[in-house]
Amino acid sequence: MSKTIVKPSILPGFMELTPPEQILFNQMMDTIRKNYEKFGFLPIDTPLIEKSEVLLAKGGGETEKQIYQVVKGSTEMSLRFDLTVPLARYVAQYYSQLNFPYRRYHIGKVYRGERNQKGRFREFYQADIDIIGNGSLDIVNDAEIPSVIYSTFKDLGFDEFTIKMNNRKILSGFFNSLGIEDVQLILRSVDKLEKIGIEKVKDELLESGITKEQIEKILEFITIKGNNDEIIQALNDLEIDNEIFNEGVDELKTVLKYLRLFGVPEGNFKVDLTIARGLDYYTGTVYETFLDKYPSIGSVCSGGRYDDLASYYTKQKLPGVGISIGLTRLFYQLMEAKIISPEDASLTQVLIIPMEGYLDEGIKLGANLRDIGINTQVYLEETKLGKKFNYGDKLKIPYVIVVGEEEKKSGVYPLRDMKTGEQEMYKLEDLINVLNNDK
Amino acid sequence: MSKTIVKPSILPGFMELTPPEQILFNQMMDTIRKNYEKFGFLPIDTPLIEKSEVLLAKGGGETEKQIYQVVKGSTEMSLRFDLTVPLARYVAQYYSQLNFPYRRYHIGKVYRGERNQKGRFREFYQADIDIIGNGSLDIVNDAEIPSVIYSTFKDLGFDEFTIKMNNRKILSGFFNSLGIEDVQLILRSVDKLEKIGIEKVKDELLESGITKEQIEKILEFITIKGNNDEIIQALNDLEIDNEIFNEGVDELKTVLKYLRLFGVPEGNFKVDLTIARGLDYYTGTVYETFLDKYPSIGSVCSGGRYDDLASYYTKQKLPGVGISIGLTRLFYQLMEAKIISPEDASLTQVLIIPMEGYLDEGIKLGANLRDIGINTQVYLEETKLGKKFNYGDKLKIPYVIVVGEEEKKSGVYPLRDMKTGEQEMYKLEDLINVLNNDK
Repeated sequence: MSKTIVKPSILPGFMELTPPEQILFNQMMDTIRKNYEKFGFLPIDTPLIEKSEVLLAKGGGETEKQIYQVVKGSTEMSLRFDLTVPLARYVAQYYSQLNFPYRRYHIGKVYRGERNQKGRFREFYQADIDIIGNGSLDIVNDAEIPSVIYSTFKDLGFDEFTIKMNNRKILSGFFNSLGIEDVQLILRSVDKLEKIGIEKVKDELLESGITKEQIEKILEFITIKGNNDEIIQALNDLEIDNEIFNEGVDELKTVLKYLRLFGVPEGNFKVDLTIARGLDYYTGTVYETFLDKYPSIGSVCSGGRYDDLASYYTKQKLPGVGISIGLTRLFYQLMEAKIISPEDASLTQVLIIPMEGYLDEGIKLGANLRDIGINTQVYLEETKLGKKFNYGDKLKIPYVIVVGEEEKKSGVYPLRDMKTGEQEMYKLEDLINVLNNDK
Repeated sequence: MSKTIVKPSILPGFMELTPPEQILFNQMMDTIRKNYEKFGFLPIDTPLIEKSEVLLAKGGGETEKQIYQVVKGSTEMSLRFDLTVPLARYVAQYYSQLNFPYRRYHIGKVYRGERNQKGRFREFYQADIDIIGNGSLDIVNDAEIPSVIYSTFKDLGFDEFTIKMNNRKILSGFFNSLGIEDVQLILRSVDKLEKIGIEKVKDELLESGITKEQIEKILEFITIKGNNDEIIQALNDLEIDNEIFNEGVDELKTVLKYLRLFGVPEGNFKVDLTIARGLDYYTGTVYETFLDKYPSIGSVCSGGRYDDLASYYTKQKLPGVGISIGLTRLFYQLMEAKIISPEDASLTQVLIIPMEGYLDEGIKLGANLRDIGINTQVYLEETKLGKKFNYGDKLKIPYVIVVGEEEKKSGVYPLRDMKTGEQEMYKLEDLINVLNNDK
């Protein structure tokens, strides 16, 4: 029976990893999850498919163009494009069963049919945390969110990273004080400062009908320099008579105070008045996180405060604050920059290689090691010894134990360190200690 | 601004859990994953969307009718309906980068547009392991697979479960020896034995043109009684002169021998000659797993040996053996039968409740506890003390520490056990020990 062979391939823009890469990716995911749980965030897992009517309740904009539709039966369905809309739907739907402030984390895949380009993925993991209040939510939460991110990135092995912060109220209050109503317009230009430079931003603003005087004041404002406290001082010194502006400065000051109490070192957070974050969603504190040595990677973790999470699904007012790690993109960038490498990634600690005729002993030893929590594979195929060793080598399994006649008789096993090539003899009970200490 | 409110709801046939249920579900998933890794299985994560051409290479049958199509651009795409087809595609695609025997585990969601009924889900998790050989794969692997399942279900908290086993070669060899060519026909009826009873199976077989004599022999065969070794003996005693049959009996005998060596107790596996498992996929050993006290739940974990994993994608011969836990359905059934309950599910160990004016102290204590690995939430909102305690109670957080003037002065903290209501005083260093021991 001859079959037609279909070329095995995946869709463009989808990430798929080799086994050692996958081990590394999962370790990152586990570290993020562990940190989210450390701060009392609760897990959630929502369907990847939702009713289009629900998912697109907000409607319009770029999002709708990027949607993957799902077809089966007559209901209009779509794949989720972020984890925030499902959260809003979930909180509205289970409102009476949740305890507020409701802290949830969600690590899951989302789908966006973006233009295909290197480093951009159409299926990618987001790792989100949000704290949702019922009616109100204290500003201290805005300090805890970046402290979770600090803890997470430390555990991911980074030391030099900066959580940049701003407050949207400072921006809109300031622009209002200049008599500029269309704050969005300015923010859109300010947001591009890093990308296109100060001169081009000036040109854009002029074209938008902002006067030269106003532009000078705007540039003076967004280039305020100094450490965190100096920036707050400089903002106060502006003596701007605008309620929103002053509310924003007070909030930012409070966030800085509590960030320190949450144990985040001064070197890892920085007020940056050019951080604006999108256009219509965030209403207060905003965050972006950068790896100091790799600025070209861009923000690896962003978020902020919003007034009302679920206004499309409920009349309950649900303010919140949250942040999201774009895990797939982060992993890809770290791999590309060779900041991480799957070189020695192995979950299996020991490979047992039975000599011909001693499979039974190998299997029994494997069961003993697993019983005390050592991840152990027994090589079960009949083949040459060299091929068995080669297998362990390729899988980067750190230890090999060969089992044969002598080991069966003596109960003493040779533990070979596959990196150094060194081999030491151990009784079973000692083997257990050595391997447990090495975990 | 008045918005139209969209009713927040999910699609029928999709499972979504409350926070405590989700904690319990994740714990099950973690236990499964830990066990899979203990035996040297490597993680994989494939896209949920694949090219329809690839996913449906095999084509035909029920599967195709249940497919969720995905629409975006011109490529025909579908959601995966199991984890085996993506595995086949993956192994064919990355053949040269994989080390064989390739052991992989995959825990992920799959999609089937089944008729909507209680306990059936259209989006559900599968938790699969497979061992794939390059050209050949030793029969010993057929014994290791159920030993992983034994280890997993033990760790999930079950004692009384039975992994039922058979070998398809025994079935087809036996039927061939009776002169019956259409083995599938018989298997389809035999498969229904549990459901419809022996008399109806007889009727079905008669209608299919099987003679009364043949039926008597079939029934005699499938009702062979005894312990595992007695069944093997009885099969030998049949003295059937059929190569396939005898190969099957030998394989089953070998699997039984090694299952014992892998440490699976005699009470947890049982040869059952009525287990047939589907129709055209499995070629040797087959498994189904039942919870002894809850037979109505049906098989909670099934699989078997196949000759050729990826014949639609490659000419390489890739025999394998694997098994799958239908995790979503299992969770649902265990909840329905009240075998598991999310009653006390909490990931957070301590809730710190700051008295009015002592938020700073609360936050600092929280940071200290987290530093030594205690999952700790600080209650950050300003509200009445009773409401704060109530919050901890509802979230089932086991310990509460109230922090106020006295605690700030003395550095001694009251640890309240929320289950017993008892409270003891500890210095920070002792608190750490007590909580670490309690984890």
